[in-house]
Amino acid sequence: MKSAIANARLLNIAPSGIRAIHERKRASSVDLGIGEPSLKPDMAPFEAAVAWVREHGCPYTTYAGLPELRELVATVYGGEYFKSSDNVCVTNGSQEAIYLAIKTLAEPGRDEVLVTNPGYPVYHKVCELEGITWRSVELVADDGFTPRAAPILAALTPKTRVIVLATPANPTGAVMPPSEVRDLARGLAARPGPPVYLVVDEVYRELSYAAEPYTSFADTYPHTLLVESLSKSCALTGLRIGFLIGPAEIVQAAARIHSLMLMSASQFGQRVALEIFRDPVRLRAQVPWYVAQRQATLDAVAANRLRAIEPAGAFYVLVRLPDRLAADSTAAAYALLEKADVVTVPGAVFASNTEGYLRVTWAAPREAVVEGLKRIADFIRD
Amino acid sequence: MKSAIANARLLNIAPSGIRAIHERKRASSVDLGIGEPSLKPDMAPFEAAVAWVREHGCPYTTYAGLPELRELVATVYGGEYFKSSDNVCVTNGSQEAIYLAIKTLAEPGRDEVLVTNPGYPVYHKVCELEGITWRSVELVADDGFTPRAAPILAALTPKTRVIVLATPANPTGAVMPPSEVRDLARGLAARPGPPVYLVVDEVYRELSYAAEPYTSFADTYPHTLLVESLSKSCALTGLRIGFLIGPAEIVQAAARIHSLMLMSASQFGQRVALEIFRDPVRLRAQVPWYVAQRQATLDAVAANRLRAIEPAGAFYVLVRLPDRLAADSTAAAYALLEKADVVTVPGAVFASNTEGYLRVTWAAPREAVVEGLKRIADFIRD
Repeated sequence: MKSAIANARLLNIAPSGIRAIHERKRASSVDLGIGEPSLKPDMAPFEAAVAWVREHGCPYTTYAGLPELRELVATVYGGEYFKSSDNVCVTNGSQEAIYLAIKTLAEPGRDEVLVTNPGYPVYHKVCELEGITWRSVELVADDGFTPRAAPILAALTPKTRVIVLATPANPTGAVMPPSEVRDLARGLAARPGPPVYLVVDEVYRELSYAAEPYTSFADTYPHTLLVESLSKSCALTGLRIGFLIGPAEIVQAAARIHSLMLMSASQFGQRVALEIFRDPVRLRAQVPWYVAQRQATLDAVAANRLRAIEPAGAFYVLVRLPDRLAADSTAAAYALLEKADVVTVPGAVFASNTEGYLRVTWAAPREAVVEGLKRIADFIRD
Repeated sequence: MKSAIANARLLNIAPSGIRAIHERKRASSVDLGIGEPSLKPDMAPFEAAVAWVREHGCPYTTYAGLPELRELVATVYGGEYFKSSDNVCVTNGSQEAIYLAIKTLAEPGRDEVLVTNPGYPVYHKVCELEGITWRSVELVADDGFTPRAAPILAALTPKTRVIVLATPANPTGAVMPPSEVRDLARGLAARPGPPVYLVVDEVYRELSYAAEPYTSFADTYPHTLLVESLSKSCALTGLRIGFLIGPAEIVQAAARIHSLMLMSASQFGQRVALEIFRDPVRLRAQVPWYVAQRQATLDAVAANRLRAIEPAGAFYVLVRLPDRLAADSTAAAYALLEKADVVTVPGAVFASNTEGYLRVTWAAPREAVVEGLKRIADFIRD
C-alpha cells in the first residue's frame, strides 16, 4: 500500500541515533548518552515567571518574542553587529533556530549547505527535510576535529549559500580558535558575489574551557546567524527557549516563518528567560561545576588508560574504540549497553569521521561518569 | 539589491491583518481585536508544574510529548478512532499542529488543499509558505457562514488531498451541525481513490453554544486530523500547548517533522497541560463565563440595533457594516480605531466573503464589549 505520507523526503531521513539507543536504556543503566545536564535549574526565574502569570495571565507575546528579552539577548550575544532587539527572534529551543536559519537562507534545488563531518546530525537532516542539497567538510581526528578556516574555505562552491558549524562543537567538544574565527571571517568577506551565510551554533558557548576568551563571529562577520539556547548553560533543555540572532532583515523573515509555523515561543518560557538575562551572571552560574567535572572526566580517562579526544568545550568526550571494534561504533555501543549497562552514543551517528569513537556525555552525575568510564575501559579490554 | 532571503515565497505572503491593526492600538483603546481570552488562567496547574520541575529538573520530553499526557488527550478528544497515545503529538500550540498536518499530508506541486472562505488566514498562508496550491469553498452569509457538506464535496477535485476547516469557526463562530458532520464524513468515505484528509481545527470546541452536543469527526471519519489547544478554553494562549490527533502513521510522521523543526514542546507547558487533563473538568471551567458573555454581547448588539451574525460558538461576532462602508472593511476598521478608539479586525482579513464585516472579539471584559459595541453603532450611524 502506498503510504499516506505525502512528504516522501521524510521517509528517507535516518531516525535519531541518539534517541534510538536512549530508548534501550534500562532503569539500572549508567546513562552517558543524551546531551542533557543532570544539574537542576535555578528555580528563582520559575517563581518570578509564575508570579508574572498570576498577575497578568498568560497572553501571546509578539511573534519574535518579548522586546525586553530580545534587547537583553542582543546585549549579551549580539557582539558588534547585532545590537538591537530587531536582530533577535526567540525560538522554541536552538533546534527551531537552526531550522529557521536554513529555511530562510537556502532555496531548495538551487543552494547548497555546507556542514562539518563530524557534526550535529540535525543540520543535514533539516536540509534533507526541506529538499536542500548539503555537503560536508572533513575535520581531522589528529587535530581534535577542530573546525579551521582553510578547509572550510576550500570546500566552498559557487552554490554554497550557507555554512553551519558549532563552536564548541557536538560531539567533539572542539572550540574554533580565535585566529581561525578571524581567518574564516576574512576569507568569507573576501569572496566575490552574494554573501555566504554562516550559521554558528553557540549552544555550548558558556561551556568553553579554552585559554582564550570565546570569540564570536558576531564580532567578525556581518553575515552570521547565531543560534543560542538556555538548554545547556542553565540546565533547561525542557524549557525550549533558544534564540536566532543575526542581520535584522533575515531575522525578521525568519520570524515570519516562525509565526506561520508556531506563532511564538511560550510566554512562560520567555518570562523565565527574561529573569535570567536581567541578571546574566546566571548564564554562567553552573560553569564552575562543568570545569571541575571536565577535570574529573579527564582524570578518569587517564586512570583507565582510555584514548580520547580532550574537549575544549561542551560536555562530551569522544572515546576511541580499539581497532577490533572501531569499524562499527554502533555495534560497540549497543554491546556496551548490553554487557556493561552503559549508555553512550555511537560516533557513527555524527557522520563518518567519528566512526570508531563513542560519545560519552559527562554532564551526568560524577559517580556515573567515573563508573561509566571504568566500565567502558573494562569492556574495551575484554 | 537582491534580497538576502532565499525563500521567495515568504515575501509574497500577506502580513497578519490581525496583528497589523493590533499594533495601532493605543493605551486608551477598547480592544475587541485579537482573539485572546481576557480571563486569567487557573494557577493550580502552574504551581504543580513548578513543583515537578523543582523535584525533577526540566529535562527533554520525548519528541511527541509526555506519554501520560498524550494518553489523556486521546481519551478526551480521540473519539472512536484515535484512542491511544500513538495518535497524539503535543505541539507548540494549535498553529504548529496545523503546519504539521499540511506539511505531512500535502506534496508541493502535486496536491491541493481546500480551505473555507471565510476562514482563519493561517491555513492558506501555510500552504503558500510550503508552495502548496490551495483553493477555497465559499460559505454563505445568509446561512451564517455555516460549513456544510454539499458545497465542500462539490468543490473537491482529483488533486484535493486535504481539507482544512474549523468548527466552531474563526471569524464566524459558525458550528457545523451534526447532520452535516455525518454527511461530509459519509461523502468523503464514499469517494474512490486515495483518502482525502480532513484537518479539523477544534480549538474552540469547548466554546460551542449550539443546542446539540459537539460532534467530532473523530467519531465519524477515520482520515481526520484534529487540531486542539489549551489557548482558548483555559486562557493559555501564551503557553503554546496544542495537540495534533489522528491516524498513528500520520501523527508519527508529523512528530518526526516536529522533532527536526523544534525537538518537542516545552516540558513545563506539558506539565501544566497534564494537570489540566488529569482533571479534565478544568477544560470547561470557564465555559459558563462565555455563555453569559455571549448573551450580554447579543443583548448589546440588539440594543444598539447592529446587524450581526449570531455566533453558535467561539467568542467572535461579525458585525455588518452599512453599505457605504461595506466595500472596504479595512478602511472602516482603521477609521473606527482612529475616530472611536475601538480595535476590531476587518472582515477582509478572513477572505472575500467577510468583506463588509468587522470581527468583534467578545472575550474582552464585559464593560469593554458593551462600550465597544455602542461606539461601533455610533460610528456606523455617523
